[in-house]
Amino acid sequence: MRGQRIAEVRLTPVLISDPPLLNVQGVHQPYTPRLVVEIVTVDGATGVGETYGDTKYLELARPYARAVVGHDIADLNGLFTSMNKIGVADSRIDHSVDVGGLRGVQSADKLRLSVVSAFEVACLDALGKIQGVPVHTLLGGKVRDAVEYSAYLFYRWAEHPGGAGEKDAWGAALDPAGIVEQARRFVREHGFTSFKLKGGVFPPEQEVAAIRALADAFPGHPLRLDPNGGWTPRTSLKVAAELADVLEYLEDPAPGTAAMAEVSRGTGVPLATNMCVTTFPEIRQAFLTDAVQVVLSDHHYWGGLRNTRELAAICRVFGVGMSMHSNTHMGISLAAMTHVAATVPNLDYACDSHYPWGTEDVITARHVFRDGRLDVPDAPGLGVELDPAALARLHRRWLDDDGTLRDRDDAAAMRRAPEHATWTSPVLPRW
Amino acid sequence: MRGQRIAEVRLTPVLISDPPLLNVQGVHQPYTPRLVVEIVTVDGATGVGETYGDTKYLELARPYARAVVGHDIADLNGLFTSMNKIGVADSRIDHSVDVGGLRGVQSADKLRLSVVSAFEVACLDALGKIQGVPVHTLLGGKVRDAVEYSAYLFYRWAEHPGGAGEKDAWGAALDPAGIVEQARRFVREHGFTSFKLKGGVFPPEQEVAAIRALADAFPGHPLRLDPNGGWTPRTSLKVAAELADVLEYLEDPAPGTAAMAEVSRGTGVPLATNMCVTTFPEIRQAFLTDAVQVVLSDHHYWGGLRNTRELAAICRVFGVGMSMHSNTHMGISLAAMTHVAATVPNLDYACDSHYPWGTEDVITARHVFRDGRLDVPDAPGLGVELDPAALARLHRRWLDDDGTLRDRDDAAAMRRAPEHATWTSPVLPRW
Repeated sequence: MRGQRIAEVRLTPVLISDPPLLNVQGVHQPYTPRLVVEIVTVDGATGVGETYGDTKYLELARPYARAVVGHDIADLNGLFTSMNKIGVADSRIDHSVDVGGLRGVQSADKLRLSVVSAFEVACLDALGKIQGVPVHTLLGGKVRDAVEYSAYLFYRWAEHPGGAGEKDAWGAALDPAGIVEQARRFVREHGFTSFKLKGGVFPPEQEVAAIRALADAFPGHPLRLDPNGGWTPRTSLKVAAELADVLEYLEDPAPGTAAMAEVSRGTGVPLATNMCVTTFPEIRQAFLTDAVQVVLSDHHYWGGLRNTRELAAICRVFGVGMSMHSNTHMGISLAAMTHVAATVPNLDYACDSHYPWGTEDVITARHVFRDGRLDVPDAPGLGVELDPAALARLHRRWLDDDGTLRDRDDAAAMRRAPEHATWTSPVLPRW
Repeated sequence: MRGQRIAEVRLTPVLISDPPLLNVQGVHQPYTPRLVVEIVTVDGATGVGETYGDTKYLELARPYARAVVGHDIADLNGLFTSMNKIGVADSRIDHSVDVGGLRGVQSADKLRLSVVSAFEVACLDALGKIQGVPVHTLLGGKVRDAVEYSAYLFYRWAEHPGGAGEKDAWGAALDPAGIVEQARRFVREHGFTSFKLKGGVFPPEQEVAAIRALADAFPGHPLRLDPNGGWTPRTSLKVAAELADVLEYLEDPAPGTAAMAEVSRGTGVPLATNMCVTTFPEIRQAFLTDAVQVVLSDHHYWGGLRNTRELAAICRVFGVGMSMHSNTHMGISLAAMTHVAATVPNLDYACDSHYPWGTEDVITARHVFRDGRLDVPDAPGLGVELDPAALARLHRRWLDDDGTLRDRDDAAAMRRAPEHATWTSPVLPRW
């Protein structure tokens, strides 16, 4: 392992297809930006990572990529030190809720960590390949052989406004029957046994009806509802009371730690979050006030796989559950999620992933869910192989874009539908 | 790294010399038990670890050593799983304060982790040697090149009762002048710049006077006082008020989290602990009540170096300081402490170590402090080499012991002094 210094870093922004999935902020764009990070060591070993690809990530990744040339890939702690030397244009950072990605608080540190995560994963991939061991071994060893994922259900349109983007055969899902049909297809194709519905799209009673329909169609199966902070504490408590008998947890019903704590005090339904606890500094207040009972980790936000394990340790100590969040992503990040999930003893719930929606990928062999699970890869590194032609094609799309889609903006995507031409991101809570 | 399974584990209990150092429970025995763990892989790689050596540890280490034969040394998470399959005779565990080692709460889990720690360190040592990298690299890479230690001052007798054990040239230290003289020698020989006095031996006013004498002799240098839970909250607050201008922190003034929290509420002097937070389950209550501001990790208690890093992550998030505790130990554990300390960004204070008291060792080259620091070893593994002759000699002493010293009992050691023939461990708090 000595002497495996980074000789070259290749950053490749891509635009990958995304279905017209609805959320409280709007609708997914036809294509969403991701960033692929490839590192090559002086001895020719390679590793890949993936993270968010919006402009603000790219602007930080570029100087960072130059800074880590010469860095030893085994010096994973040093990746953070190196990042701290890179400046962040404060103008790119605000502390409001991210209107595009529903990614919780934005801070310079979180942006830095989201970039570091892709480099950390790439270093682990290269280290694993060099040593002939899977990434989970580098994280101390898997404690399970398969990782469970849940079906990630969305209200959606049949196609993007104006027929933009790629077509798919899912059709629209805008009512309880449509959601149940969608769930059945996910079960048929991937064997999922738990279900999460992205809410915040329709008035709460309609979404309650959808969960009730799922409970009727799949009795006894774990169900979750996530309106991305779209509700007041009062509405949240009403929904919690109505669905207490069928919900595994309620995800981010109300915006912010204080509101979540208020909801938590009034219900026995566990509250999960990927919005009010997305950084280490947010943990203390949320745990002290018992605002959340489950943290859904996004390893990009937290700075990679080792930091995700530290988050898991903190959750263990405080009796808080742990699982994983997903934003639209490709197979590199899904492999990374699966490796780290395999090593966390207290992974208490099936993880989320957008991957089954069939987003495009840059790896040669797509991941395959069986019985709602992914087998933990035992091949060296992440166990995925980059497909240069696919990467070039998706990068070409990014190059050809006039800038419209390079920064994900679900509200702008919504306005492209004539009937929502005046849409703006709602002030939360909406209901 | 593949295929490096454990072929053999050698457990060697030893008795190592220990000076007549006084504490609230009594006095150190002339010899104290430690356990050396050697692992040998199927390919002949070796690694060493060290932990507490009392009978209850040995009784657990023996079946565990058999259980891990065949275990892959890279599967560090699996070490815990394997341990959980080993039964612990409940009769060996009580939840009172440990009268011998001042080791805080005792539980079956903590005993298990203390044993696992030596195996984890041995696996890391072997992994490092196989890969040609230091242990700190396996922990993600050092963030500093040297680790600072403090001078660990003790009230002490010139020799053990009846002249037992090894002789040394330190002489007695039973008053402020003796403590200052001891400190001067530590500074002269090792360059320490911070000082910790083990208290709980004399009435608090005498120990306050000793700290005041140190402050006069070493103005501006960090000072700490540790009576091992010997005081009431009221006494603790009195001492804190009297020494507020010179104490870096006050360590375990009062016994238990509730009493520590009471002290904490009444003083601005930071409180450190190695007694009320020694296991993961104890963290929550202590942090929620702001009972401690510094956790002194003993990597044996916490289950090894990776768990120590997790503890550090938890401390970071909660704004709690972090440093390291020491019990009488040899150079294997000192190397392990130094490696992990080198990787923890928030190592906020100089670490404790008994090592400069000159306890016997089983490694070929003793660690050397310069300017109060140890350079972080960059040789493969821990960077220490076992001395088979020394190991055999210290094991022989253990074999020859009639059982008197195999379980550390500072109160029993105290009673061997005719003037303390009726000594019993005091009920805490004593003052």
